[in-house]
Amino acid sequence: MSYIIPLHAKSWVQVSANSDFPVQNLPFGIFSTTTKSPRVGVALGDKIIDLLALFELGYLSNLGFDQADFENQHLNSLMSKGKNANSNLRERLFNLLKEDSTELKNKTEHHSSIFVQQADAAMHLPIKVGDYTDFYSSREHATNVGVMFRDPANALLPNWLHIPVGYHGRASSIVLSGQPIYRPKGQQLPVENEPPVFGASKQLDFELELAFTTYQGKPMGESISTKEADDFIYGMCLFNDWSARDIQKWEYVPLGPFLAKNFASSMSPWIVSLDALEHFRIPGPNQEPKVLPYLEYSGDKHIDIKLEVIIETEDGTENVISRSNYKHMYWNMNQQLAHHTINGCNINCGDMMASGTISGTTPDSFGSMLELAWKGTKPLKMKDGSERKFIQDGDTVIMRGYCEKDNLRIGFGEVRTKVLPTK
Amino acid sequence: MSYIIPLHAKSWVQVSANSDFPVQNLPFGIFSTTTKSPRVGVALGDKIIDLLALFELGYLSNLGFDQADFENQHLNSLMSKGKNANSNLRERLFNLLKEDSTELKNKTEHHSSIFVQQADAAMHLPIKVGDYTDFYSSREHATNVGVMFRDPANALLPNWLHIPVGYHGRASSIVLSGQPIYRPKGQQLPVENEPPVFGASKQLDFELELAFTTYQGKPMGESISTKEADDFIYGMCLFNDWSARDIQKWEYVPLGPFLAKNFASSMSPWIVSLDALEHFRIPGPNQEPKVLPYLEYSGDKHIDIKLEVIIETEDGTENVISRSNYKHMYWNMNQQLAHHTINGCNINCGDMMASGTISGTTPDSFGSMLELAWKGTKPLKMKDGSERKFIQDGDTVIMRGYCEKDNLRIGFGEVRTKVLPTK
Repeated sequence: MSYIIPLHAKSWVQVSANSDFPVQNLPFGIFSTTTKSPRVGVALGDKIIDLLALFELGYLSNLGFDQADFENQHLNSLMSKGKNANSNLRERLFNLLKEDSTELKNKTEHHSSIFVQQADAAMHLPIKVGDYTDFYSSREHATNVGVMFRDPANALLPNWLHIPVGYHGRASSIVLSGQPIYRPKGQQLPVENEPPVFGASKQLDFELELAFTTYQGKPMGESISTKEADDFIYGMCLFNDWSARDIQKWEYVPLGPFLAKNFASSMSPWIVSLDALEHFRIPGPNQEPKVLPYLEYSGDKHIDIKLEVIIETEDGTENVISRSNYKHMYWNMNQQLAHHTINGCNINCGDMMASGTISGTTPDSFGSMLELAWKGTKPLKMKDGSERKFIQDGDTVIMRGYCEKDNLRIGFGEVRTKVLPTK
Repeated sequence: MSYIIPLHAKSWVQVSANSDFPVQNLPFGIFSTTTKSPRVGVALGDKIIDLLALFELGYLSNLGFDQADFENQHLNSLMSKGKNANSNLRERLFNLLKEDSTELKNKTEHHSSIFVQQADAAMHLPIKVGDYTDFYSSREHATNVGVMFRDPANALLPNWLHIPVGYHGRASSIVLSGQPIYRPKGQQLPVENEPPVFGASKQLDFELELAFTTYQGKPMGESISTKEADDFIYGMCLFNDWSARDIQKWEYVPLGPFLAKNFASSMSPWIVSLDALEHFRIPGPNQEPKVLPYLEYSGDKHIDIKLEVIIETEDGTENVISRSNYKHMYWNMNQQLAHHTINGCNINCGDMMASGTISGTTPDSFGSMLELAWKGTKPLKMKDGSERKFIQDGDTVIMRGYCEKDNLRIGFGEVRTKVLPTK
């Protein structure tokens, strides 16, 4: 069961017009303050609604949740109550917050314990990720990589148009926006047919992605159809799948990327529910050749999400280096999840599945430095006069994303990561 | 700190000479009975020592463990106390069980609550696996695959002798010995240049492996050296990395195996500590070309572990189809762990890292059906007259392993998995 907040609804809580978090969004995260231990919160404008306080004050009774679901360092416990309970929770929140509702509005003595300024809060990794899967579902990205590293005439590998190609990534190194990462070390092969060398990666790259996290799936041996997939997806966040291209190139044959990726991935703190994105559904690309029946789907399963990537240089200046859109995906989430489980693979509450690099059709919409600077042949100019072929120590990579339609903006906030020198 | 039980020690508890579980082994697992909820147990001969009962009766005080460490569905809580505490626990158990010890022996009124017959117990998945990594560290296996699918003259890929190649697998579908699995479905490409087809895998295979599970590692950005690695390895178990070769062949380029592997992996129930294997350490192969400094190691880091694979046909007859040995590994665990963390990747308590298929040098010592039946060209004969190119529905694949030296046998028990038809 879904619960979609009306397109033109308003809240009695003031939310500025350009906020990522109007009352239609209500994304979930984990926050703390100097006086509040980590707990579940919901973003609204520049505030966070403290769901533990709301529960303790009796506003969230009879919804099937326990105090421990809100007094928790992760959302998994809340998510484990399933889609219906979580839809009911969002509906209840909207009914407390909508313009004409007085139940909470008039209880002004409760407001100071329930509302926290985002500026006063620290955010925490919201999901205890079980398994992390990364797909490779942008045709433009796969084509660009194929042109650069294989045969421009046959850039897409033979399986790509039949399979939402994916691989397993590392869950332990998924970190929150704001946590700096260290440049990875590893083996590289700078000169073909010479021995490999060891050192800090010289080709550190980001990958612009969105990820979704799941509700508990079916038992092993069973599959989730494209039609059922929406019921197993809790919500989405921005995702930066950090990559070291020089390490990747040397290691990835035949079993795929390993150390080139598993040193870090960064996610944004707020999980935007699938229901909040429903207004922005759009049709996907025509899939030709025809996909196998288990990958067929009906309805609009793609989503129009505007994305941008920024390099903030050490002087604090933002340089927008890419503007892309999630609508460019060839394979949608329903197809990804149906494929992932078609062999009977089980998924758990809190698994994370990322889209793969989201590249658009034009060179200024590519989702990685590899593509934007085209293997280092077209360096990007920064406002401070420097150039970038890949990411430098001291750079902060920022990704932002939002949907917009009929004056409604549903945003994801940002994922921001500073790169520190090798430890 | 290690604790190694003397080679010739004996226990006052009767253990038959051919048991996998003499007092030198003391492997840990999770068991339950009709009257005991899941809890930590230690195998000794044909018995299990109930560690919760032992704790409640006061035999395990002042070791730094809590009741919750033993009254637990997983070993992770126990493991999280670290290597020293777990070594001390094994030492304490040995001191209670050794031939000349009377403290527990004479308290006969305690014996019925502490000792359980293995035949009366159900075993449970002992580890809540965080991240699962599979290596590819047998030179013979990598060579066989290269000969079959690539170029016999250049069977090993250029990176193989420099890198302990590995990839991330699926933690959610790791199941215990005894749990049947379903034959996976998926895309296959039976005819080159024709469209792929969908159906049950026709090339279901096992992979004979051993896996190790880890203590908590270092913070992100730091590495574990080959010298330090022993201190981060809790113990080992038998591991069957189920594989569907037809699905694998079509999907694995360029990001590695995904649905061909993630439908199931099976592990044995008892985790044998690294300390229990210390008597069986041996030198590894000469590594030429010389490895990079971070992969150099000193001392004997390989282990002589005899392994066998059996197909039990539906009539209950066992057919031994392979006899291999863990000593055949090119890369040892210390090198695997050093490589895994050299880029700063963090590991957690309860991560699982498997060896990759363990193939010996002779055709009867290969670790997969793919190699044993050489791509289906040399079917294996079963005692019931049937032949096997791959694994059939109704087959039970059994792997057993043990070390043997100076009349001491340290065994792993078995991992046993029946294959059911596609669900």
